[in-house]
Amino acid sequence: MSDPLNALVGRKPKQYDGPDSPRSVGWTEPCRVRLADEINPLPLDCGETIAPVDVEYEVYGEMNENRDNVILILHALSGDAHVAGWDAKAEEYGRLWRKTRPGWWDSMVGPGKAFDTRKYCVICSNVLGSCYGTTGPSSTDPTTGRQYGLRFPIVTVGDWVRLQERLVTYLGIERLFAVAGGSLGGQQALEWTLAYPGRTKLAIILASSARLSDQGLAFNAVGRHAIISDPNFKGGDYYGGPTPDRGLAIARMLGHITYLSEVSMRQKFGRRYRNGNNTPGFHLGIDFEVESYLQHQGQAFVERFDANSYLYISRAMDYYDAASWGEGDLDKACSRVDSKFLLVSFSSDWLYTPEQMKELALALCRNRKPVTYVNIPSSYGHDAFLLEVERLEPLIRCFLEGGLVR
Amino acid sequence: MSDPLNALVGRKPKQYDGPDSPRSVGWTEPCRVRLADEINPLPLDCGETIAPVDVEYEVYGEMNENRDNVILILHALSGDAHVAGWDAKAEEYGRLWRKTRPGWWDSMVGPGKAFDTRKYCVICSNVLGSCYGTTGPSSTDPTTGRQYGLRFPIVTVGDWVRLQERLVTYLGIERLFAVAGGSLGGQQALEWTLAYPGRTKLAIILASSARLSDQGLAFNAVGRHAIISDPNFKGGDYYGGPTPDRGLAIARMLGHITYLSEVSMRQKFGRRYRNGNNTPGFHLGIDFEVESYLQHQGQAFVERFDANSYLYISRAMDYYDAASWGEGDLDKACSRVDSKFLLVSFSSDWLYTPEQMKELALALCRNRKPVTYVNIPSSYGHDAFLLEVERLEPLIRCFLEGGLVR
Repeated sequence: MSDPLNALVGRKPKQYDGPDSPRSVGWTEPCRVRLADEINPLPLDCGETIAPVDVEYEVYGEMNENRDNVILILHALSGDAHVAGWDAKAEEYGRLWRKTRPGWWDSMVGPGKAFDTRKYCVICSNVLGSCYGTTGPSSTDPTTGRQYGLRFPIVTVGDWVRLQERLVTYLGIERLFAVAGGSLGGQQALEWTLAYPGRTKLAIILASSARLSDQGLAFNAVGRHAIISDPNFKGGDYYGGPTPDRGLAIARMLGHITYLSEVSMRQKFGRRYRNGNNTPGFHLGIDFEVESYLQHQGQAFVERFDANSYLYISRAMDYYDAASWGEGDLDKACSRVDSKFLLVSFSSDWLYTPEQMKELALALCRNRKPVTYVNIPSSYGHDAFLLEVERLEPLIRCFLEGGLVR
Repeated sequence: MSDPLNALVGRKPKQYDGPDSPRSVGWTEPCRVRLADEINPLPLDCGETIAPVDVEYEVYGEMNENRDNVILILHALSGDAHVAGWDAKAEEYGRLWRKTRPGWWDSMVGPGKAFDTRKYCVICSNVLGSCYGTTGPSSTDPTTGRQYGLRFPIVTVGDWVRLQERLVTYLGIERLFAVAGGSLGGQQALEWTLAYPGRTKLAIILASSARLSDQGLAFNAVGRHAIISDPNFKGGDYYGGPTPDRGLAIARMLGHITYLSEVSMRQKFGRRYRNGNNTPGFHLGIDFEVESYLQHQGQAFVERFDANSYLYISRAMDYYDAASWGEGDLDKACSRVDSKFLLVSFSSDWLYTPEQMKELALALCRNRKPVTYVNIPSSYGHDAFLLEVERLEPLIRCFLEGGLVR
């Protein structure tokens, strides 16, 4: 969901493993494959079908002979397939500009890291509706020859997982060793266990839940409202003209408030003024450091993300409810699953709260499914799943090793 | 801050006391007085002065002979002087349209209510910078003959209280019996005790704190950003043309998220869809009930509030820090006060948290000031100060009665 680079502003700067480090997967290049076409379109939860669908994905580490060492990592709202290492061709792409930068979970994926690429083959694909290589609203609609915009169908977490299943099958993987993700990525991991019981041995779900709270729906609603009411939005047909940056920036600023916690904000900004002398500047512009931070996050985001994709992906986040596999009953839904679970929440996460994760853990337990649930004390809020590397690493490493032996 | 009528959406409808009820103060008419002019302008914390300043206020109940039974009520962000009863001339005013409606704290102010107008004379004035009768950005700037817009000086809670002190003096009141307010109104009550020690016998501070959190600053910043980046804003000179409704609606929607709690949202909306059949509508418009609620709140607000006033008043909320009376040390600041305090927080209030109120209570206690601090268990979040009437009424009544005898 958040950008780990952004989340680190205000902390002591983190040393990234350079592309030549033995702990880095090195330079990476995305792969691309067409997984739906006219003959075999992708059916969607909304009732429509879509074709063609191209999927961008990245692979780190080697698949073993039995192809049973594959971990599928699922990304969150603003993420992409570039999980680890350094994107070799980032600046060559014709799509939205991205700086060469380490993958969004580089701290967790690589040789000797939590998801150890010496042992496991790690795959991540970009979700349907995104703007990072997989077909989305900024792709060309074959029926009109123009970019989809809002003619793109509504997509869901279920649709994403259905498409990921095609990718996994295409790669000749019968059963995944693990699925893993944080936030909206965690909901995809959960959906994998529900939609394809037994197709993944393990599931690692971080900072996530069976469904978003009403408060979370409310934040998404205001963000989308800001985008749609931006005069540049033009019903989603803004491509080639000025983009709805004001609206998208507002949505992102709002998002960042929910990714941090009240405590981490206090620690980071402490009501400090930018002028450094601890007195108001008496104006309506950027006066507090926290204002400057949000402004920066908003501006940085519009350079790298498509507003329509934000609408579609946040809507998928809204609509997700694992209980729908049990006619609204989460316990009943969880009776389907056939995986071992590692669930991790973070004490100060108020977007996907520990209480919500506990609800999921209990639903699985009541069905006698194997679950490890850990609530990590952390002040980082929702961003903790990107930042609490030292606490997550042993948990994830041991959980994966347990899956190898049993 | 919130509108009590709005806050009640989703609860069982409340019966308001009609203007003829014995528990109502009846039909009310605001008073208006000029409290600063060229000869005696109002000095402001920003270093400027302002004149003329007209103040709108309302009075309920009778002042006694000694004029020592006066309670000054302070309103929050979007409030006005109309605390109780029914505004007789609401629809005649040339300013922003207001429906005839009960005052924003009618449940608390009236004959036999918590602030009992049979015993006390209750006064409330509209703050400087507002759009409800007191001079603000939509008033005419005498130096240009045009509406101030952003040429209006930055105002602070300190300035508001300085102006209120002029009103109190003008009304011949030497010492207030009590000051009382919730949210930003509570900060004004606190400021009264700090700026004019001994000028009020009692202080009632609800759902408030010595300063806003960084998270609170962040929400205000995004709201203002939405207003200022609205193309209709035109640097604040939008009067007479289209108004920045989109931005103001976003600010208000955001505000409402902070006024409710996660629990109250869940109780109120429960992820229900508007279509009533508990399945997604698969579109980007208003699909969940919580979305519909926020949309309504945003739309209703732009009909009754001025965007520039929102900017100025939310900025005053940002800048307030009671500790500035003690060079940043709240304990030191609290050594000044000479009043008895009733502090009330609400367990689920995450805009002004119980922890923050406790911090203020402790600072007062360490100075051996008389303090009663109550944290009321409530699921209503910040709005609780408007809604928890049954719990507040005995607390406030007894506290006021204690002030009468001692």
